[in-house]
Amino acid sequence: MEYIKINKHISTPFYSQIKDCIIKAIEDGTIKANDKLPTEQELCETLKISRPVVRQAYAELLSEGVIVRYKGKGTFVREREVRENFFKELSSFYQEMKREGLRPSTKVLELKKVGYDEAIFSPLELNEDEECLHIKRLRYGNDIPIVLVDTYIPLKYFDGLENYDFENLSLYDIFEKDYDTTVFKANRFVCARIINNEDAKLLQVKRNTAIHYVKTIAFDQMDRAIELSIARYPGERNTFEVQIDKR
Amino acid sequence: MEYIKINKHISTPFYSQIKDCIIKAIEDGTIKANDKLPTEQELCETLKISRPVVRQAYAELLSEGVIVRYKGKGTFVREREVRENFFKELSSFYQEMKREGLRPSTKVLELKKVGYDEAIFSPLELNEDEECLHIKRLRYGNDIPIVLVDTYIPLKYFDGLENYDFENLSLYDIFEKDYDTTVFKANRFVCARIINNEDAKLLQVKRNTAIHYVKTIAFDQMDRAIELSIARYPGERNTFEVQIDKR
Repeated sequence: MEYIKINKHISTPFYSQIKDCIIKAIEDGTIKANDKLPTEQELCETLKISRPVVRQAYAELLSEGVIVRYKGKGTFVREREVRENFFKELSSFYQEMKREGLRPSTKVLELKKVGYDEAIFSPLELNEDEECLHIKRLRYGNDIPIVLVDTYIPLKYFDGLENYDFENLSLYDIFEKDYDTTVFKANRFVCARIINNEDAKLLQVKRNTAIHYVKTIAFDQMDRAIELSIARYPGERNTFEVQIDKR
Repeated sequence: MEYIKINKHISTPFYSQIKDCIIKAIEDGTIKANDKLPTEQELCETLKISRPVVRQAYAELLSEGVIVRYKGKGTFVREREVRENFFKELSSFYQEMKREGLRPSTKVLELKKVGYDEAIFSPLELNEDEECLHIKRLRYGNDIPIVLVDTYIPLKYFDGLENYDFENLSLYDIFEKDYDTTVFKANRFVCARIINNEDAKLLQVKRNTAIHYVKTIAFDQMDRAIELSIARYPGERNTFEVQIDKR
């Protein structure tokens, strides 16, 4: 950890000097993605500074998405994994992860039929007496939570959908194979928000983390709204890239 | 403000009841975008509850992007302005605002030549002895700050660029008219982050606001990297929409 030095004779706050050293070390290649950083304790002892100073430096680097912390494992330089087709292509989470070389897995947190709720039924163009299947899934890449998604599917198009195993089967595959339905186009709304406390716990990020809050309405080949999903992607684990061409 | 009611006999926390009432009133159309909400003081008096309760309700609605607060003006239902082509089309800020029916304006905060900095020069494929023009601009729609952008342009392609009036001229127009250069394609990286304190002041948002942090590298018709820009869009004032088609 020779790359972190403090100069006690200049006016720059110590926490800020620590941050600058770490950012510089990443930029000049001294440390690389997934390298482990010293613990707060180690930094305090080596630099002979107080714990709150180190804590502030790390807290800001975390919120800026420069480093990442995994429970029981430590603090690491964040891998700048970048999703290349998120804004151009309709692909399943499984395909997205595979493309990035990450091992996908899924935990189903909820699977139940739900009745009328204006915020869900209105974009799906459903009547008050119809029903949706609500699937709440936490999705992982290499066992790290990448996204938390609430999906709502009108059951009138997908009778019996509640009986599938969504931990091991892709929703879009089920649509195609068992219901002759293809997701044909989608409208995606991308917001930047602060995560709520409940979602922070599930995604194992600290409170007040910035997230991509993405609402997607998907349509099938007959232009029927067949899916509404609300996804929360922690910013520190998700960067989206898009290539734009002059029209 | 009859739409905000509190039931003191149920276990739901008061702040949460206030939030729910406001969200419901927006969803059912009782209040609309840009409608003014009661002040914290008014709510305390009418509902006979303490200030921290109201403050928490408003703080959460602010961070969730449901409402927005302007200094000296009050708290309003957020307009869900949506940028439709951000991920598909290369257009100037001026064009983007016009399309949304907003009056664009620009304040130049910095305009200076800068020397080597790896983070800037490397994506622009510049040598250590070259120079960039750094333009820092705050851009408004109807006098509300929408985005803060740092733009870096290699001066070897745009000799004399520092003499232009960037408050009244579009950078892309100058490229085309005076330098025969067209922005042809761009790579955009979209991150979700927490704003830093300095940027929060400039954009007039509260500390720890979630932002879209967007890095763009633009190329001209000869595939030369001619622009690097780093833009901070407060989430509460910017939602991006994208339509995706099955390939």
